[in-house]
Amino acid sequence: MTGSDRPDPTEGHCPSMLITHIGELVTNDPGHGGVLGIIEDAAVLMCDEKVTWVGTTADLPADTDPDKHIDAGGAAVVPGFVDAHTHAVFAGDRAEEFAMRMAGASYEDILSSGGGIYSTVRSTRDASLTDLVSASLTRIDHMLVSGTTTAEVKSGYGLDVETEARMLEAIAVIDDVAPIDLIPTFLGAHVVAPEFLDARDDYIELVTGPMLERVASFAGFIDVFCDDAAFTVEETRRIVEAGRAAGLAARLHVDQLSRSGGTALAAEIGALSADHVDHATDEDLAALADAGTVAVLLPGVSYAMRSAPPDARRVWDAGVTVAIATDCNPGTAYVETMPFVISLAVVTGGLTPGEAVWAATKGGALALGLTDRGVIAPGMLADMVILDAPSHTHIAYRPDGALPIEVVKRGMLV
Amino acid sequence: MTGSDRPDPTEGHCPSMLITHIGELVTNDPGHGGVLGIIEDAAVLMCDEKVTWVGTTADLPADTDPDKHIDAGGAAVVPGFVDAHTHAVFAGDRAEEFAMRMAGASYEDILSSGGGIYSTVRSTRDASLTDLVSASLTRIDHMLVSGTTTAEVKSGYGLDVETEARMLEAIAVIDDVAPIDLIPTFLGAHVVAPEFLDARDDYIELVTGPMLERVASFAGFIDVFCDDAAFTVEETRRIVEAGRAAGLAARLHVDQLSRSGGTALAAEIGALSADHVDHATDEDLAALADAGTVAVLLPGVSYAMRSAPPDARRVWDAGVTVAIATDCNPGTAYVETMPFVISLAVVTGGLTPGEAVWAATKGGALALGLTDRGVIAPGMLADMVILDAPSHTHIAYRPDGALPIEVVKRGMLV
Repeated sequence: MTGSDRPDPTEGHCPSMLITHIGELVTNDPGHGGVLGIIEDAAVLMCDEKVTWVGTTADLPADTDPDKHIDAGGAAVVPGFVDAHTHAVFAGDRAEEFAMRMAGASYEDILSSGGGIYSTVRSTRDASLTDLVSASLTRIDHMLVSGTTTAEVKSGYGLDVETEARMLEAIAVIDDVAPIDLIPTFLGAHVVAPEFLDARDDYIELVTGPMLERVASFAGFIDVFCDDAAFTVEETRRIVEAGRAAGLAARLHVDQLSRSGGTALAAEIGALSADHVDHATDEDLAALADAGTVAVLLPGVSYAMRSAPPDARRVWDAGVTVAIATDCNPGTAYVETMPFVISLAVVTGGLTPGEAVWAATKGGALALGLTDRGVIAPGMLADMVILDAPSHTHIAYRPDGALPIEVVKRGMLV
Repeated sequence: MTGSDRPDPTEGHCPSMLITHIGELVTNDPGHGGVLGIIEDAAVLMCDEKVTWVGTTADLPADTDPDKHIDAGGAAVVPGFVDAHTHAVFAGDRAEEFAMRMAGASYEDILSSGGGIYSTVRSTRDASLTDLVSASLTRIDHMLVSGTTTAEVKSGYGLDVETEARMLEAIAVIDDVAPIDLIPTFLGAHVVAPEFLDARDDYIELVTGPMLERVASFAGFIDVFCDDAAFTVEETRRIVEAGRAAGLAARLHVDQLSRSGGTALAAEIGALSADHVDHATDEDLAALADAGTVAVLLPGVSYAMRSAPPDARRVWDAGVTVAIATDCNPGTAYVETMPFVISLAVVTGGLTPGEAVWAATKGGALALGLTDRGVIAPGMLADMVILDAPSHTHIAYRPDGALPIEVVKRGMLV
């Protein structure tokens, strides 16, 4: 829910909630020191959707009189997770394809058995808006209860005008009915549609023409899968330019399967984010850092694909702003929850537990150009996660999703 | 709960539950074909604690009149997970040690900062029975709600007579109050107690003498950490012989850190299980297969320690009976849930999703010598997991614990 239909807090009473005795409050506010801006024995006051006061429990003004008061009893609190890269709206089931891949089947074997991305395209084209919302709402709910308070979701399983529009409509419907905030991205250029395999230029005409025209008002961003298996650097440039002309900022899938030059392009055009970047060179990373483009790393994909994990340590140390995200999708990473991604970023990617939490919160917000979240400070959205643990380190320490949490979204317990 | 204090089902009415329209029932009963003995569109009837009827929904006797009826609506059902190797009863917090290790700290750095196993020994010695039960009950509850209906739990953080006995008492208390069944193992020979570092022979005297005498009536098994860092093969043999004389069957930690010969010993003495076996040779595995000793693989440890994962494929293909387990412990694997272990065994260990489910159910039961569970068939305990998914493959396909399940323990919904 993006909040535009919430009651106006200036009209009468502002519902407030106070959390005290937070053993460790991760604010991500550098004013409090370190990467995470930690305050010990902290308190947070929120009113309606926003944080209004942050400090130590001892410093809390004596006349604070909230409608609801939670004593955290020493538990840690972190900002709500911002999952900046997902394909969480889709129809169909590809579990059998996973089993085939684990048994050593090649991509060709999978395609010839009816699997691969086109299988999701078929199922999604066949799904009504209601089907699509109902199949995806469960996933979005898993995200929310595991601490994701904002998630980006891409189209890209339609690859025709009607279905791309229906996917973006489904994202809007779920954003409306669920407490989570969903940020929609248009990914008509996910792969060339099956009908256009011998006429890729015609498909790009469709994406940059009628399809873009139809969806531009629904989408916040344009994304292109720039890789040998999908679109070239020059095709990507052309699609992004059309998207920008229609008012959409660029975020790109780049250098996932090989170094095809997408990271360099993202930096050159000043894209908001460059996602995957597994095969980026040191020069590419330096360019990203200079451009201020956020690298969105997706270690769940490498896990499920048995490929080399993204070297998050290297990207971070190159001075690039790092976000981590689930890439939730039915083919290469059926991962819904950010705590698992945080664990992977630490264990397989070399981030510290604190850096991984930052990348899953503030980093994600920056990747989406959102300046109102990812930080717990007065004026920011009151999105946060209360851990049943004394420190943020427990998220990576306990990789299996069993660490219980409570989620606060826009000032309300979910 | 081991069931001895349940009402006698022969006294009057036997409470029954029926599940119908199970899309895929994994029985592990070879009579139904394949490794998993799958029945499609199946039904299961259970009465009090046990399964009384298994078949297709169409074949269900027309006069079946259960007290409770669940329509699974095509969902898959698998046997309850049997986690055959855990250290889930402990006190203290070692999250900071995890963070240090992830940042590259050596084991010596960790020891000198007060970390390592002796830190858990100090915390556990300091904990009262109530403290120990309360700290551990939460973990055991996470296990149960994630589908573990039977878990082995070891002592081994006391290393003195009183604390080893208190740990085993805590296991008995939790078994009594929680619906899960806990199987206790005496692991006084986890490492040499800190007071005995210069007198290891005296410690072995203590373990095989007064300590064993005190705990033998509480424990089902004796276990020894047979490795360069703990006990030699000859010391292990001596400890196991004392345990067997006291009526305890042997299960051993072997060849985890290096090939010290423990797997060969486990086979030679006919231990019920050989756990870890990471460095076992082909000859060692052949000996295990001949002896009928179950290999318990613990991929969560390799994940959290960034070491090479156990090659489950190789062990399975050597003809050894394979179980997989969490090893839940505060130092090397804070993993509570079997679905994550199933995912690791497939993605990092090379099992098929079906083999991994078998190893997490029937394999675990065999590792504990339990013949009344791990299979869904008439006469077996009614322990099972209803997945919110059409097939068992989804457990490995979705590695982050977000797949919702419902758990049936001894015929009751948890």
